[in-house]
Amino acid sequence: MITLTSDFGLKDPYVAEMKGVILTIDPKAKLIDISHEVEKFNIRMAAFTLASAATYFPEGTIHLAVVDPGVGTERRAILIQTEKSIFVGPDNGILILAAQNQGIKHAYRLTNQAFMLPKISGTFHGRDVFAPAAAHLDKGTAPDKFGPEINDLIKPEFAAVKKTGGSLIGEIMHIDSFGNIITNINEKDLIRNPAEKVNVDLHGESLKLTFGKTYGQTKPKEPIALIGSHGFLEIALNQSNVAEKFQAKPGDKIVVTPV
Amino acid sequence: MITLTSDFGLKDPYVAEMKGVILTIDPKAKLIDISHEVEKFNIRMAAFTLASAATYFPEGTIHLAVVDPGVGTERRAILIQTEKSIFVGPDNGILILAAQNQGIKHAYRLTNQAFMLPKISGTFHGRDVFAPAAAHLDKGTAPDKFGPEINDLIKPEFAAVKKTGGSLIGEIMHIDSFGNIITNINEKDLIRNPAEKVNVDLHGESLKLTFGKTYGQTKPKEPIALIGSHGFLEIALNQSNVAEKFQAKPGDKIVVTPV
Amino acid sequence: MITLTSDFGLKDPYVAEMKGVILTIDPKAKLIDISHEVEKFNIRMAAFTLASAATYFPEGTIHLAVVDPGVGTERRAILIQTEKSIFVGPDNGILILAAQNQGIKHAYRLTNQAFMLPKISGTFHGRDVFAPAAAHLDKGTAPDKFGPEINDLIKPEFAAVKKTGGSLIGEIMHIDSFGNIITNINEKDLIRNPAEKVNVDLHGESLKLTFGKTYGQTKPKEPIALIGSHGFLEIALNQSNVAEKFQAKPGDKIVVTPV
Repeated sequence: MITLTSDFGLKDPYVAEMKGVILTIDPKAKLIDISHEVEKFNIRMAAFTLASAATYFPEGTIHLAVVDPGVGTERRAILIQTEKSIFVGPDNGILILAAQNQGIKHAYRLTNQAFMLPKISGTFHGRDVFAPAAAHLDKGTAPDKFGPEINDLIKPEFAAVKKTGGSLIGEIMHIDSFGNIITNINEKDLIRNPAEKVNVDLHGESLKLTFGKTYGQTKPKEPIALIGSHGFLEIALNQSNVAEKFQAKPGDKIVVTPV
Repeated sequence: MITLTSDFGLKDPYVAEMKGVILTIDPKAKLIDISHEVEKFNIRMAAFTLASAATYFPEGTIHLAVVDPGVGTERRAILIQTEKSIFVGPDNGILILAAQNQGIKHAYRLTNQAFMLPKISGTFHGRDVFAPAAAHLDKGTAPDKFGPEINDLIKPEFAAVKKTGGSLIGEIMHIDSFGNIITNINEKDLIRNPAEKVNVDLHGESLKLTFGKTYGQTKPKEPIALIGSHGFLEIALNQSNVAEKFQAKPGDKIVVTPV
Repeated sequence: MITLTSDFGLKDPYVAEMKGVILTIDPKAKLIDISHEVEKFNIRMAAFTLASAATYFPEGTIHLAVVDPGVGTERRAILIQTEKSIFVGPDNGILILAAQNQGIKHAYRLTNQAFMLPKISGTFHGRDVFAPAAAHLDKGTAPDKFGPEINDLIKPEFAAVKKTGGSLIGEIMHIDSFGNIITNINEKDLIRNPAEKVNVDLHGESLKLTFGKTYGQTKPKEPIALIGSHGFLEIALNQSNVAEKFQAKPGDKIVVTPV
């Protein structure tokens, strides 16, 4: 099974060209779109979208993701093998959040031209490089056949939660349609506190929040911190818009300290 | 085979999350999108869209539909078994028009947690409750394993055509792009008149219409009543916009009386 | 495998109705969307989109394409068998560019009602005529069973490159998002010149261009002519917007002469 995520939109033939390439190599591939309506060049949004959805796909799924402003430059084409799946795309951070969530085992550069189209355009590696790689992986080619192993994956700020003393310094990935704040701090990063309280610094304000399991645990309009279904720390204000209250937006820094 | 209908749009990862859940339970599921561009919270539009499309799908198809403004409240999660298919979604009327078209056999509440995700969010039963149910139905679990049978399905006004004397009182579900008026009165409701004429009351005007089989039967600009391909009574004005002429819009009442 | 291209959009149930019809006839069909966001009634855009994507699909693929402003008129329903695939749709030019690219073997009119839905609407042959034809082709029915062979396919101007002396007179099909000009002149039409230079007349200007293989062959901002990945002659200005420079738009005439 192969999922596809991109900023190509659904109007142009680009997504279909990738699918045609995959199905020519691997006629039995099962193709599932995650989203092709990612904002153009918005790597953070793509990384969050992929990480959210990948959680729900079966073991062994190949995830192909292409938001690729650096196509044609020196940026590397890569695959990342995790405990659960394989991710294929440019080395610009689009894959790493989802991959870190699942636990990274190995990463390889895609350099073996045997697994690319014969002609590589300068502008559409989604079709010419990444789609053939996904197809060959789905057919069973081992990840280490695609190129040399690498250990220096690009990590944009959003993929590099910092630890300072007992605190985690992360950022806001997404504000959902309820105004909940979704961060880049995942379940593994988080040091759970038996007291079940966390301090959250956001926009100069310091909040002491219950660290709970469901929205239902709090009274209406009382903020709560919890691990959302996408696997990331989320700040929610039951029945109210917490992002609006704190004027929070994607990219804002957030500091979390167990009490 | 499982179809999906929702108001989630194609930008966010929500539709993909439902598909991931289904494919984790039922890796061989064949997934077909009906539409995810239903207007947010517009149950009537979703009900019409589902009823139109369901007509064309094979026997045994599982139809999953989620426009769910009441998620997290007391509204029930249900499945409806018809003569032809199984419909899964919230008990708010979204399923009932399509189900009535096909002939309802049984309806069950979804209460058996064995067929839900282990964690149920308060906001996304499409993924946590309905998608797993659809997957288990597609794999062959019998409808009566999901919960108790119910006999009091919610019927919004649009799903309850009234009969008064010889008349049928229905409403307008949809105005198509040709301006044809599509009602909620289906083939089974309609008492066919051998004279092949019907009186239609709409916006205070009373029209005597031929009850025909194709647009071609009438002269240009002569209104006609017919059963459209979606199985509902439709009022059309050959080569002209009948909805505009009568200022008709979705939700308007319509009274049909065989002459 | 069956691909689908249309101007139906993704909001209405029309695309799903076509898929339901196909899957009722041919439950094992693999369905791939090319685009349903083609501009309404824009046959040129559909023809270009289909031709671009079809290049990448496997041999034996059935391509169903419906942009059909003439539905219900005398325009013919057809299939075109090429060296590589089968195209199904209205005889209005939507199929011919892709078919010519692959080499046309035979064309047939769809007249055999055994391969249509029992009721044919006047407005939706995509569902009632073309979808069933695609399904029966995918199941193995021979192309010549659908109706009489024809030899007078409709060729809109964009599908009829003219040859005058040594020149080719074509038109602009598409301006891509980089501003590259994509023409309707395909690899087969083009008389390659060993000098590897072509004269291009466009908007009253005459350009002498290198006829190259990749963008990389030229210096920045130096125009180049090449066969793009879709199989058509393309005029590009490395790292610059050539369409803007020459105020070129789809439909503009273009004359190409080997030097």
